[in-house]
Amino acid sequence: MSVDSLITKLKGLTTEDFAVLDHQKVLNGTAWSETLSSLNNVPSHTLTKTVVLKPKTAKSQAVVPILVVALESTSTPSGAAAKAVGAKEARLAAADLVEEVFGIPPADIGVFSVNEQNASKVHVVLDKNLINHGGLLAVHPSSSEKTLFVSAAAIESYLKTIGATPVVVDFSASAKPAEQSKPAATQKKADVSKNDAAIENAALIGITVRKDVDFPNWYQQVLTKSDMIEYYDISGCYILKPWSFSIWEAIQKWFDKQIKKLGVRNGYFPLFVSSKVLEKEKDHVEGFAPEVAWVTRAGSTELEEPIAIRPTSETVMYPYYAKWIRSHRDLPLRLNQWNSVVRWEFKNPQPFLRTREFLWQEGHTAHMTLESANEEVYQILDLYARVYSDLLAVPVVRGIKSENEKFAGGMFTTTVEGYIPTTGRGIQGGTSHGLGQNFSKMFNIVVEDPNAEVGTTGERPKLNVWQNSWGISTRTIGVAVMIHGDDKGLKLPPPVALVQTVVVPCGITNKTTDEERKNIEGFCAQLASRLIDADIRAEADLRSYTPGYKFAHWEMKGVPLRLEFGPNDAKKNQVTAVRRDTFEKIAVPLDNLEQRISDLLKTIHTSMYETAKKQFDSHIVRVKKWEDFVPALNKKNLVLIPWCNTTPCEKDIKKNSARQANGDEPEDEKAPSMGAKSLCIPLEQPTGEDAIVENVTKCAACGSHAKVWGLFGRSY
Amino acid sequence: MSVDSLITKLKGLTTEDFAVLDHQKVLNGTAWSETLSSLNNVPSHTLTKTVVLKPKTAKSQAVVPILVVALESTSTPSGAAAKAVGAKEARLAAADLVEEVFGIPPADIGVFSVNEQNASKVHVVLDKNLINHGGLLAVHPSSSEKTLFVSAAAIESYLKTIGATPVVVDFSASAKPAEQSKPAATQKKADVSKNDAAIENAALIGITVRKDVDFPNWYQQVLTKSDMIEYYDISGCYILKPWSFSIWEAIQKWFDKQIKKLGVRNGYFPLFVSSKVLEKEKDHVEGFAPEVAWVTRAGSTELEEPIAIRPTSETVMYPYYAKWIRSHRDLPLRLNQWNSVVRWEFKNPQPFLRTREFLWQEGHTAHMTLESANEEVYQILDLYARVYSDLLAVPVVRGIKSENEKFAGGMFTTTVEGYIPTTGRGIQGGTSHGLGQNFSKMFNIVVEDPNAEVGTTGERPKLNVWQNSWGISTRTIGVAVMIHGDDKGLKLPPPVALVQTVVVPCGITNKTTDEERKNIEGFCAQLASRLIDADIRAEADLRSYTPGYKFAHWEMKGVPLRLEFGPNDAKKNQVTAVRRDTFEKIAVPLDNLEQRISDLLKTIHTSMYETAKKQFDSHIVRVKKWEDFVPALNKKNLVLIPWCNTTPCEKDIKKNSARQANGDEPEDEKAPSMGAKSLCIPLEQPTGEDAIVENVTKCAACGSHAKVWGLFGRSY
Repeated sequence: MSVDSLITKLKGLTTEDFAVLDHQKVLNGTAWSETLSSLNNVPSHTLTKTVVLKPKTAKSQAVVPILVVALESTSTPSGAAAKAVGAKEARLAAADLVEEVFGIPPADIGVFSVNEQNASKVHVVLDKNLINHGGLLAVHPSSSEKTLFVSAAAIESYLKTIGATPVVVDFSASAKPAEQSKPAATQKKADVSKNDAAIENAALIGITVRKDVDFPNWYQQVLTKSDMIEYYDISGCYILKPWSFSIWEAIQKWFDKQIKKLGVRNGYFPLFVSSKVLEKEKDHVEGFAPEVAWVTRAGSTELEEPIAIRPTSETVMYPYYAKWIRSHRDLPLRLNQWNSVVRWEFKNPQPFLRTREFLWQEGHTAHMTLESANEEVYQILDLYARVYSDLLAVPVVRGIKSENEKFAGGMFTTTVEGYIPTTGRGIQGGTSHGLGQNFSKMFNIVVEDPNAEVGTTGERPKLNVWQNSWGISTRTIGVAVMIHGDDKGLKLPPPVALVQTVVVPCGITNKTTDEERKNIEGFCAQLASRLIDADIRAEADLRSYTPGYKFAHWEMKGVPLRLEFGPNDAKKNQVTAVRRDTFEKIAVPLDNLEQRISDLLKTIHTSMYETAKKQFDSHIVRVKKWEDFVPALNKKNLVLIPWCNTTPCEKDIKKNSARQANGDEPEDEKAPSMGAKSLCIPLEQPTGEDAIVENVTKCAACGSHAKVWGLFGRSY
Repeated sequence: MSVDSLITKLKGLTTEDFAVLDHQKVLNGTAWSETLSSLNNVPSHTLTKTVVLKPKTAKSQAVVPILVVALESTSTPSGAAAKAVGAKEARLAAADLVEEVFGIPPADIGVFSVNEQNASKVHVVLDKNLINHGGLLAVHPSSSEKTLFVSAAAIESYLKTIGATPVVVDFSASAKPAEQSKPAATQKKADVSKNDAAIENAALIGITVRKDVDFPNWYQQVLTKSDMIEYYDISGCYILKPWSFSIWEAIQKWFDKQIKKLGVRNGYFPLFVSSKVLEKEKDHVEGFAPEVAWVTRAGSTELEEPIAIRPTSETVMYPYYAKWIRSHRDLPLRLNQWNSVVRWEFKNPQPFLRTREFLWQEGHTAHMTLESANEEVYQILDLYARVYSDLLAVPVVRGIKSENEKFAGGMFTTTVEGYIPTTGRGIQGGTSHGLGQNFSKMFNIVVEDPNAEVGTTGERPKLNVWQNSWGISTRTIGVAVMIHGDDKGLKLPPPVALVQTVVVPCGITNKTTDEERKNIEGFCAQLASRLIDADIRAEADLRSYTPGYKFAHWEMKGVPLRLEFGPNDAKKNQVTAVRRDTFEKIAVPLDNLEQRISDLLKTIHTSMYETAKKQFDSHIVRVKKWEDFVPALNKKNLVLIPWCNTTPCEKDIKKNSARQANGDEPEDEKAPSMGAKSLCIPLEQPTGEDAIVENVTKCAACGSHAKVWGLFGRSY
C-alpha cells in the first residue's frame, strides 16, 4: 500500500491528522531515533518496533508468521508472543519468509505491512504498553525511509478494518520469573483481548475464534480460510472464489429452471442508466439515490452527462415495456436477468450481506390482471422459500412487509425472512413485489381492454398493466454460512456443496509398504470415480499430508461427508463415513455404495434443515404484553405480537425497544443499541385461541385494536 | 427527448450551432410564421411541416405509420408518400395513433419525434426540396411551443444515428399528372435513396432492404425486427432480448461444461478496479486506457480516487494469483468468469460487434510449465472453433496473430477468424492467449521449483508460473446473424435457436367448422408437446393471424423448421415441414416424428455449415504477386500470401492496400478506404507445391524471404 492510500484509509477510520516524514534509510532503532531528532517539524512521539517471528510448525502445515508490534522500549520475548497465539515456540523469521509473506524486506516492515491480502495468513501481536500509550507513535509505513506518526487507536481501527485479529500481550507480565516457572498446562495465558473467543488448540490454519463469542471475527475467518471469499482492495467489494461461487451456480441452475417452467425468459439490460431515466420515478429513486455510482469520464474525456450504474432495473426496463407491450396478446410479459447491481453503501460492509456490488437475479413481469400478477408474486415467493429450504437447508418465514418496509414505488412486498441464532437477528432473504399499476402509469404501459365495448372514439378503453418485480441475491450464501457453520468452520448443505464427499486414505504408517500405500490410494481414487459416475460430486485427497491435517482441512471447508478408507476398511469391505454436521461415524458397505452415499447426503440435508428449523421455531416467541417484548428480544428471539399494523406504532416499537435495551446484558456488538424492526406479517397466522379477534384483541405495543400477528426483531 | 439532450446529440453529430426559441403554442404554419416574425433574434430560416399518415394495412398486420417531413411550401400528396414506402394508400393518422406511437399530440410532432425507440416502427419520408435546401430550417423539437433552427444535414445525421432509414421523395415529380397516369405496375418509383436496396413487396413488418445492397441497414432491421436487440438510450449499449440472449445461454451452457471437464472452475471478481491496480502493467493497460470508464462519484459524494470499470481482468486477478499460488501443488490454477466488461469506444458502435458493454467469458490460468500452458491454449482454441462450427454453423480459420496484432502484454495470441461474405471482411471470433511469464514477473507469481536442488539458502530456486487468458463474447451472435441471414430475416442454427420448430395450423377456410378448427389447433398443440417431450424446442402458433402472416413472422425470426398441419396433412397422417435455410418442403410421417424432426434439425445445421464453409473457402485466395493482392481483396476475398512475418511489412501491406483501393469499384461504405490487416497465420499451412521453401519462397508483399503463409483481409 502506498503511503498516500494508507493515509486516505486512516483518515476514513479516525478523525486524526497524520504526519509523514521522508528521511534516509534507517536499519535499527538507534539510527531511527538519531535521524528523527536531526529533522525539523518532528512531532513529539514514541518509537515503535516491529518483529516477524516464525513459530515452530509441523511439516504438513503452513507456516503462519507472527508480527509483533511493540514500543521500542518494551522487551518482547518470542516465547510470550508464541504462547499468545497458541504456538509452542518461535524464532526470528528469515528474510525470505518475510519477503514471501509481505513482499518487502524485514527492515521495512511495520504494522501497516499487514493488509487485507495477508491478514488471514499472519498472527498479529500487539504490546499492551503500546495500546495503552496515549501519544503519537512513530511507525514505518512499509518503508524504513519514511516515518508515520499515528495514535494507538488509529492502529487498532486499521487492523480491524483490514480483518486482522490482533492479540494484545502484556509482555511485562509474561517476563516475570515467577510466572514463567509455572508448568505450561496450568499457566495463566497472556492477557489476551477477546480471550474467551480464542479456540484452545485450534490448528494455526483453522478458525481461531469461537462462533458464539466473537461472531464477526468468526464469520470473517470462516469465509477467508475456507476459500469462499478474498478481500479486495476496494472496500465493500469481494472476490467470490469457486468455493462460494459454485453455491451461486447451484442456486442459479435450480431457480432458472423453475422460472422457465413458469414462462419466464432471460435477457440482458445494460449496466448503465442515463440520469433522466433513473430519476423518472421519484419515490422509487429516492431510496437509491444516495447509493448510486456515477461514471463521469471515459478515458480522458469528460462525459457530457454523468451515467449511473444500475442499482436495480425498474426504470431501465419499463420504458421498453411500454414499447413492447402493444396488445393484451403480449401479456404476460415475463423477463428475468442474472446480473450484478451496485449500491454504494457507506455503512460497514460485510461479505454477502452488505456489499457494494452484488450478484442477483431480477425478474420483471407485466400482467393483464391483478389476479394473474398476484398469483405469480406468491409462486416466486414459494420458489425463494425453496431455495432456502431445499438447497441451503435454511428455514424461513414467508410474510408480507409492512407499509413502512415495502419496496419504494410498489404496492406490496412479500418476503422470506431468516434468523441467525448466534446474534438473534432476523435477516431478509428475498423479496417478491406486487408493483400494482404505479410504474405502468408512470411509464404509460397500457393495452386496450379486450373485454370492454368499443367506445365512441372507435377504440376500446386502455388498461394499465399490473407489474411485479422480484429478486434474490448472493446474500443467500452468507445466511447459510452464518446458520450452519461451527467452530471448525463451514458446514455446506449437500445440494450446493462443490465437493459433496471427500475420500481420504487412512491407516498408512511407517510399516506400510509402498505397494500397500499405492493400493489404498488407488482404491480411494476409484471410490471417488464411482461416486462421480453416479453424479455425486466427489474428490479423493491424495496429497502428501497426514490424515489429521486433511480432516481438519475439509471440515473447515464444510464438505458434508468424509469417507475414510484404510487397511481395516479393506478387510471389512467398507468405507468409514463421517458426517460433517454431527461427526457421526458410519461404516458403509462398498456394495451399492453410490445409493448409500446419495441417501446419506439426503439425510444430512434433512437433518441440517431440521436442526435449524427447531432452533428458529424455538426463537419465535409470542408476546402479548409490551413488558415482555424487550426481554424476549434480549434473549435473542424474534417476537410475534398481535399488532395494529400501523406505521406510527411500528416506529414507536423500534424506538422503544432500542432505548429499553440499554443496560441489558451485552449481546453481539451492534444488537443492544438496535431497535426491533418489523420483519413481516407472516402468511401463516396463529390460529385457535391465539387467533386475532376483530375489535377485541389488542395491539401488544400500542393497545389499539390488533389486526394481525406481526413478526419483529433486531435484524441485518 | 428533452430539447437539451436533443441539442447535445446534434452537437455530437455535426459541427453546427443550434438556436432554440420558446414561444406561444402554434397550431399551424400560419400561426407559426406570424409568431416567429414577431420575435427578436430569429435567424433567417424556412418553415417545415411534419405530417403523420396511416397506410392501409391488413387487419392481421401491425400499422406502420409514415412520418412525412417537408418544406412548408411543398405539396405532399399522401399517395406519393405511401407509394414511396411500398404501401397502397394512406390517410392522415388519427390523433390517438400519433399519441400511441410518439407519445405526443400531432401538433407537437416534428422530425425529432422519431427516436431510437420508435424508429423501427415508423417510415420516415423526407421531401427532396428539404434535403436540397442549403439554409436553416425551422422545426418543432417535439413541442409546438418551441422552434429549433437546423440544417438539412443535421436532420439527416440525426436520423442516421437513431437508426431511421428515411426515404427521400421528389414530391414535385410525383405530382406531375403525366407520371400519375402511368399504370401502377410499370410506373417509375419515386426517387428513392438506396432505391436498389428496397425489397419489392416486403411486408411492412418485414425486412425492407436487401442484404447485398444495404448491409448496415439490413443488419439493423434484422436485429430489431426479429426481437433480438432493442436500441438503448445510451449509445453503444443495447438490450439483449430473449431471442438473442438465449443464443448466449446455449453457448454458455455448452462451453461451461467443456471447460469444467478441463478442470476450470468459475468465480466472480469485482466490476471495479482501483487505478493503481489497473495501471500496474503498462504495456497492457496502454491498449485499454483511452476506453476505460471511470466512476468518480457515489450519491453526492466525490470519491477520493476514481475507480475504473474493468475492461478485462488480468490486472484485477493476478495480484491474488500471487497470493493464492504458494506451491507447485496449487498448479494448474484455472479460473473463469462469465461477466460483462466495459470499453468505452468512440468509434461507431454496432450491436454485438462493437459495443461499450459486452458479455463474455474470461478464463485465466496459471501453469507450472510452458508445455502445460500451451496445451491448454490450443484446447481452448479448439473449443472456440467448435462454438462456431457445432453451435453456430459458422466456419472459422484457426491461426496465430502476428506480433503486431497479439494481445498487449502477452507472449502469443491464437485466434479463430471468421468471414462475412456480404462485405468480404474478416472478423476475429475469439482469442486464446499464451501470456508467458510476463504477468507472473510483474505480479511476482512464483513457486519453488520442485525439481531443483535445494540451494545454499536452504530453499529451492523460484519459478515464475506460465499463464494463459482466453475469451469469447456475444460477438459470436452478430457473426452468425451476418453470415446466415437473408432478405427474409434471420436464419438461426438449430443448436442455439430458442424455438427450433414452430407448428402452424393451416387450411382453415371460411368453410371450416368451429369444431374442425379446434381439432386442427388442438392437434398442432399436441405435436408441439410431443416434440418438447423429446427435448426439441417447439412452439405451436395458435394466434388469430393468417398462416401467411405467421410464415413471414417466423421466417423473419429465423426459426429453422416450420411444421404446417392442416386437413390434407391429417388425411395423409403427416406434417409438412418447411426448412428455413432452403425453403424445401418435406412431407414428414407422424410416426416416429420426434426422431425425424431431430434428424432434420441436424441436417439443417450441417447444411448451413457446409454452405457457409463453401463460401468461406472460395473466398480465401492464394496470391503470390503483390499486383494480384488488392484486386483479390476488392473481389471480397481474404488473401493468403507467402509472408516474411515482419511488422514493417505488415504495416506496408495495410497502407498500400488502402491507398490502391481508392477508385476501385465501390463496396460497403467502409471497406474501400480500409487497408488489409493481418488476420492470422493459419495453423493449417498450404502443403505440396505451395509449401514455403526456406530461403527460396519470396514474401508476396516485400520480396524478402517468406516464412509462412499469412492471411490478410479487410476486417471488422
